[in-house]
Amino acid sequence: MADRFTLYSYFRSSAAFRVRIALNLKGIVPDYRFVHLLKEGGQQHAAAYARVNPQELVPTLVHDGHAIGQSLAIMEYLDEVKPAPPLLPQGAFARARVRQLAYVVACDIHPVNNLRVLNYLRKPLGHSQDEVTDWMTHWIDLGLGAMETMLAGSPETGRFCHGDAPTLADICLVPQMTNARRGKTNLDLFPTLLRIEKACYELPAFAEAQADKQPDAE
Amino acid sequence: MADRFTLYSYFRSSAAFRVRIALNLKGIVPDYRFVHLLKEGGQQHAAAYARVNPQELVPTLVHDGHAIGQSLAIMEYLDEVKPAPPLLPQGAFARARVRQLAYVVACDIHPVNNLRVLNYLRKPLGHSQDEVTDWMTHWIDLGLGAMETMLAGSPETGRFCHGDAPTLADICLVPQMTNARRGKTNLDLFPTLLRIEKACYELPAFAEAQADKQPDAE
Repeated sequence: MADRFTLYSYFRSSAAFRVRIALNLKGIVPDYRFVHLLKEGGQQHAAAYARVNPQELVPTLVHDGHAIGQSLAIMEYLDEVKPAPPLLPQGAFARARVRQLAYVVACDIHPVNNLRVLNYLRKPLGHSQDEVTDWMTHWIDLGLGAMETMLAGSPETGRFCHGDAPTLADICLVPQMTNARRGKTNLDLFPTLLRIEKACYELPAFAEAQADKQPDAE
Repeated sequence: MADRFTLYSYFRSSAAFRVRIALNLKGIVPDYRFVHLLKEGGQQHAAAYARVNPQELVPTLVHDGHAIGQSLAIMEYLDEVKPAPPLLPQGAFARARVRQLAYVVACDIHPVNNLRVLNYLRKPLGHSQDEVTDWMTHWIDLGLGAMETMLAGSPETGRFCHGDAPTLADICLVPQMTNARRGKTNLDLFPTLLRIEKACYELPAFAEAQADKQPDAE
């Protein structure tokens, strides 16, 4: 019982992508339940799933009879119950630096660009796809620009966002880079982010977590 | 040196409000630097502050020569360097539950409603104040509704969001309740949240962290 993990996932969800990377890094192979965010008016709104995750969002991890929502809460949990390899570095300030970088994506870029927010801009607010793309690009440029500055200017940046092992910061960065390519962001302005993304994809944990590698991919 | 904390704060910022509560709970009296988000085109965009926080957002905590942005990263840091009283409960699942609740606010309600997002809706998108208020209310209702369901349905909810001591979940909830009152949210639909908010304000750590108690309040 306690050694089985179940992940409710959707291939295109970048929050689920994060958790898939974290599980791969930890060497955990979960049982998957697929929640299609577009079919049947959004399977995340089905009553059975709403009982698992009252926010009606993916991902949700179920372990040992407990359901956990919110990708960052899931990843901190995984790091506590299966500490090796760690997703956070040693040292309180180093951990704060990694969490700050992760939250730039998880609190300030991704939430304003997720499916339900973009849908609200389209309807009821009536914006065109061009306006929606400009919105996305605006927040991505701001957030990734700040990350580039933070990473390029710090001696603590290594092969990855913090030193030479992947952390929560890389796990949040990589799916956001994929999202950025859906908008008009000029990623050439962020050479440090591109370099780190490339280093991440050399690890199977990142490469195999990509949307198009998932069983529910279309 | 190591025992001095400096907080860059703005009285109306709910992310700064969270950190002020956390510092009060920990018994830490920081040196304050006030960053007025509306004056001079936004003091957070001044070059000197952008060096402290490349995201040009408040709050930032400076400790021992290190600057930390992102309120959740700051609070996790405080909990590591000054563990008593704890902001997270014992037990990995309990901590995951508290973090999930905190992130409902910090990742899914607050980011879509902060000053810069509302300003973008006003200009360039040209929405009226009524439309902006409807936007705010929509996301607040969704997020607080999920929190009410999660809290009302759990035996782990106590006087506070998790048991009988305040945690990160309460610290995120309380400022969000203040923000909710700026919109059209009917808080009577969320009796558990109202009860917990009231319990929080009985603690000076919460009451004294409110916007109107700050030296920079207007």
